[in-house]
Amino acid sequence: MHRSLLALFILAVALAPTFAQSDEGMWLYNDFPKARFKAAYNYTPDDAWLDHVRLSSARLLGGSGCSASFVSASGLVMTNDHCARECVQQVSTPGNDLLETGYYAGKPADELRCPATEIHQLVQITDVTDKVLAATKGLEGPAFNVAQRAVAAGLEKSCTADDKTRCDVVTLYHGGRYHLYRYHRFSDVRLVMVPETQIAFFGGDPDNFNFPRYNLDVSFLRVYENGQPAKLDHYLHWSAEGAKEGEVSFVSGNPGGTDRQLTVAELAYQRDVSVPDRFVDLARIRGQLEEFARGSAEAKRTATVQLLTVENSYKVLQGRMEMLHDATFFASLARAETALRAKVNKSGALKKKYGAAWDAIATALVTRKETLHPMHYIEEGGWAGSSSLGRTARLLVRGTAELQKPNEQRLPEYRDSARAALEQRLFSTAPIFTAVEELNLRYGLTRMRERLGADDPMVVQLLGKESPAQVAARLVKGTALKDLAARKALWAGGPAAIAASKDPLIVFYRGFDVQARALRKLYEDQVESVLKKNDELIAQARFATEGTSNYPDATFTLRLSYGKVAGYVENGKNIPAMTDFAGLYARTTGQAPFDLPPRWVSGKSRLKLSTPFNMVTTNDIIGGNSGSPLVNRAGEVIGLAFDGNIQSLGGDYGYDGRQNRTVAVTSQGLIEALDSIYGAKRLLQELQPKGAATTPKAAQP
Amino acid sequence: MHRSLLALFILAVALAPTFAQSDEGMWLYNDFPKARFKAAYNYTPDDAWLDHVRLSSARLLGGSGCSASFVSASGLVMTNDHCARECVQQVSTPGNDLLETGYYAGKPADELRCPATEIHQLVQITDVTDKVLAATKGLEGPAFNVAQRAVAAGLEKSCTADDKTRCDVVTLYHGGRYHLYRYHRFSDVRLVMVPETQIAFFGGDPDNFNFPRYNLDVSFLRVYENGQPAKLDHYLHWSAEGAKEGEVSFVSGNPGGTDRQLTVAELAYQRDVSVPDRFVDLARIRGQLEEFARGSAEAKRTATVQLLTVENSYKVLQGRMEMLHDATFFASLARAETALRAKVNKSGALKKKYGAAWDAIATALVTRKETLHPMHYIEEGGWAGSSSLGRTARLLVRGTAELQKPNEQRLPEYRDSARAALEQRLFSTAPIFTAVEELNLRYGLTRMRERLGADDPMVVQLLGKESPAQVAARLVKGTALKDLAARKALWAGGPAAIAASKDPLIVFYRGFDVQARALRKLYEDQVESVLKKNDELIAQARFATEGTSNYPDATFTLRLSYGKVAGYVENGKNIPAMTDFAGLYARTTGQAPFDLPPRWVSGKSRLKLSTPFNMVTTNDIIGGNSGSPLVNRAGEVIGLAFDGNIQSLGGDYGYDGRQNRTVAVTSQGLIEALDSIYGAKRLLQELQPKGAATTPKAAQP
Repeated sequence: MHRSLLALFILAVALAPTFAQSDEGMWLYNDFPKARFKAAYNYTPDDAWLDHVRLSSARLLGGSGCSASFVSASGLVMTNDHCARECVQQVSTPGNDLLETGYYAGKPADELRCPATEIHQLVQITDVTDKVLAATKGLEGPAFNVAQRAVAAGLEKSCTADDKTRCDVVTLYHGGRYHLYRYHRFSDVRLVMVPETQIAFFGGDPDNFNFPRYNLDVSFLRVYENGQPAKLDHYLHWSAEGAKEGEVSFVSGNPGGTDRQLTVAELAYQRDVSVPDRFVDLARIRGQLEEFARGSAEAKRTATVQLLTVENSYKVLQGRMEMLHDATFFASLARAETALRAKVNKSGALKKKYGAAWDAIATALVTRKETLHPMHYIEEGGWAGSSSLGRTARLLVRGTAELQKPNEQRLPEYRDSARAALEQRLFSTAPIFTAVEELNLRYGLTRMRERLGADDPMVVQLLGKESPAQVAARLVKGTALKDLAARKALWAGGPAAIAASKDPLIVFYRGFDVQARALRKLYEDQVESVLKKNDELIAQARFATEGTSNYPDATFTLRLSYGKVAGYVENGKNIPAMTDFAGLYARTTGQAPFDLPPRWVSGKSRLKLSTPFNMVTTNDIIGGNSGSPLVNRAGEVIGLAFDGNIQSLGGDYGYDGRQNRTVAVTSQGLIEALDSIYGAKRLLQELQPKGAATTPKAAQP
Repeated sequence: MHRSLLALFILAVALAPTFAQSDEGMWLYNDFPKARFKAAYNYTPDDAWLDHVRLSSARLLGGSGCSASFVSASGLVMTNDHCARECVQQVSTPGNDLLETGYYAGKPADELRCPATEIHQLVQITDVTDKVLAATKGLEGPAFNVAQRAVAAGLEKSCTADDKTRCDVVTLYHGGRYHLYRYHRFSDVRLVMVPETQIAFFGGDPDNFNFPRYNLDVSFLRVYENGQPAKLDHYLHWSAEGAKEGEVSFVSGNPGGTDRQLTVAELAYQRDVSVPDRFVDLARIRGQLEEFARGSAEAKRTATVQLLTVENSYKVLQGRMEMLHDATFFASLARAETALRAKVNKSGALKKKYGAAWDAIATALVTRKETLHPMHYIEEGGWAGSSSLGRTARLLVRGTAELQKPNEQRLPEYRDSARAALEQRLFSTAPIFTAVEELNLRYGLTRMRERLGADDPMVVQLLGKESPAQVAARLVKGTALKDLAARKALWAGGPAAIAASKDPLIVFYRGFDVQARALRKLYEDQVESVLKKNDELIAQARFATEGTSNYPDATFTLRLSYGKVAGYVENGKNIPAMTDFAGLYARTTGQAPFDLPPRWVSGKSRLKLSTPFNMVTTNDIIGGNSGSPLVNRAGEVIGLAFDGNIQSLGGDYGYDGRQNRTVAVTSQGLIEALDSIYGAKRLLQELQPKGAATTPKAAQP
């Protein structure tokens, strides 16, 4: 199926002017393309509407990054089931697997604290481009990096009032613009309702990124402040009628990252080096987790979330690989770059400013390739695989050292602006699954030895005479970092406590932190700073030659996408915009992943089977947008985005409105399921679906 | 390390004339480049020498294909341990794992029959190019295929005298030449001696394809005829002195396949489609097998051989991926092709004959890509993964039907010339490991559903309402094909017995054999025949413009490579040509895979530690050459090839004599280990290392 997408996509690129009016774009809230939107949809959302929807939108951290929305005045949050999966696994216990049974808090006291989740509400955006550019003017390499970090640290620190605030300098257009984002930070997040994974992810991996689809991929959380449900001024109301085919749909969420504005050399690096490397790595750990999870119910319970995450990433990378390996598509990107460079080189002034940027990037990528494996396995934590204990040891050793430095000289992830979130993660009470930890650590160390070689000095230093399996077993068994008290003591004790620690995992990581830092320094000086500097130049070259009307690549910050509820044609066949509950029952086989939870089997007769269940829209989204609300012209919820179709998997590199689709649960399907299957009266009352026809003042279009 | 190879390789391509005198080449015995060899080594091996070495060489089937040599008048065969691994696993039993303990038959009666191994000795080569070309003259597409098969079937049949003969029409230069190979076939092969896998594969996957190296990768088998050790006229004697640095070394063996004469489009297909697809597949099944093998000693015993095979292929494909993704290398291939096409197009006659071949291939590859997954999962057995039961079911259903047809109309793998080998496989008494079978079948069906999609009609037909895991469990549990008697009855009963069978695996495969055949027909008509025809044209275009002095790409048929014992320079460091036993002990850590078997630990004092153990030579080899003897000018054994170094992994696509090396056990290391560690007196006596200085008449150079 993906192949036909490629053909169409290439056609789309060839016909670019026609597509200028497509629904492409992940737009900044403070730069929404009103004229462009009006040309397509014949009206304009006003600033009050934009502010209201923005303040009703949320970003969710904990596990993988997601999007969410506020849906009641009392802090109710709607997101996907798969965005709350980590929390659900963490609040489950042996013999009480909430992933399997689902969960519904019938009364406030039953709402369960998610130990490692936080939610951000974007309250203010300030353009700080001039300040950042002024600070790095004329600088290159390490000096560029040091100056840029210092100015960002200063801007963030002066913006961060307290633990309830998070401020980030966000790099847009790969350096064309710098904005300071101020978030209100909710750190007490509780679980209100999740369905069973079986129905949330009905069809499992085979149906993932497919459409037609039948998933109740929803969860409800609640943000608390001072032990009480947070009081919210802005939240989304519910559409009384639900989604309708053809109507306008906005998606407000945090697309994680796109690569539509990278240079050809950067994309070739992805195609030839980084993406296949990661893809094959995912395949291997996927195989291990699949077999591990078959071992016992407890193994399954503790490995499921990682396995599902890996499966999802695997499919995403497969789509990206296919797109990158399409020679015709790639040639079209090369032509576009050649045209841009020709424009730059035609003007003496532009050439002098920007002409050398592309080659500088290509050169830095050679070093990047050479340092890829040492960087990944030694500095970036690859030695520990996805082990959380490994990450914790690194955070403790390095974090305590970094905090001794002035804020602006620290590695960015240890700046004061990030400290509250960092401590929340470090002091999380989430359970640690030792068998899964050991599997990951063993895997990471094994891969490290494979990729760096058994005779690499770092490998010899880390493993000594032990095998990866022995090291992993010894560290996981011996470390006290599983205990919150031990982590708190080391953190509070600072570098002295770290230096004195006999914890085997601390000892292990402490032994090579210096070398890891040296690798990072080399990478920052010779790769990162060159890419940043020259990506910035190219962005400015684009502004100078093509204007500033385009949207920036996604950066896991809040964006607004517009589109409509619409099906598509695939292999000559019409794919309708919506599915219904009847289709769900027709697709069940009784065998995982096409089986239903008991209450869906017994509840069939109570459901109105013709209710729309899932739908597709033309919105341009990507990973990170999961959990985004879909709202109509009135700013009311008409759906909940949880996926893209298979044709959207090349979306990292471009958008084709003919087949690229957002996949969402319809608002009416959500209500019908909450009512008829879950009897979630308290929740439904709070969502007020009956009274939501009256849109609050702030959201009046 | 591999990166520096690429740089050198590219340089080598740029300096091609200089390299004309390198040790590159996998030469045909009937077309050995005497003049070229003489220019480099200042003498010429005569025809008697060539005949003797050829007749002392062998090909080994059973598990993966390997090379071997005859080393006594009484049918003794030398090959690698890893070439006999399947046999060793098959003759092991629960609690008696010969992979772990090794095996030595102290007396003839202790030699153990390998249930699925056969050995071929190449006795005659006949050039049949004219006959094949005449048969297909003017034909294209399906007609080309039908005619070529018919002529090959006829030639093979008229050559195949009995079960002790095997004849194959071998396609050389991708169709530039067709030779008829007649083999003497030994079907009774017995295990004489294997060391422990620990020492045969010391360093395991981390050291695989590395050098310096310390592996005793040897096994001794014996061919029997009529229940007695076969009497051989030709076999290799042992060098009294052993290998010496700088001396000439010949490798006589069966390189499996190279791709040095493919078109750029064919290589791009590998780079962008088939190699990454297979690579990621290997990574996933590797992960599953790794975790499975950790489950118990029995799981480890029964999964080890497949796991080691997968690990090896994985590393090979990684090397190929890196080579294919090197843009500079690839551009050099493109330039060479452009030059060849320009030469062809310059002459009206050549252009008319050959000019369209490249584009025809590129077009067929589009169809190949589109049909890749259906072909692989439905027709080529991908649905069954590496399950031997799945292969058996297919063989029974399809083979019984094919045998009803006239020989020349059958699918090639069911021709009379292949029948003896086919029946040997079918009636093998090798044990079937049901848990491993189930894992593989489950994996194959799961991947099939992933790659074709859950709604693909074939997937729906094969799985129905069951999950892949259920289907796999049901079929493996229910099938009687595990029993030899059941297989024999179905084979003897022919199509009627197959049609009447209620065996669940027969029923399962029978249900889609028609569709599988249809896919194959489509592939043959639209892809295979086009590639064959046009590859043949390009080979002829090469002959017409570049002459016929080059060697053909490897085809798992017997070749002779020449070179010398020589180290190399890597990252500015000299890698000596030889290692010794002292180096082995220095490298042990006591932990797998760097641990030693007990008798090597206790036997250290008996070993002369300075004895050369492994070595590298400049011979140009590739997978399939494992087990090849290395012989000196006198035709005496000086070593046993078991690997290439990491720089040889791009050898599929080219050869660079500066770093590309064959890795071998030295003959003196073999003797020292057999003597001091294994006390293998009977074996040593038979190899006659003391008396071998006198080379027999036939081998006099």
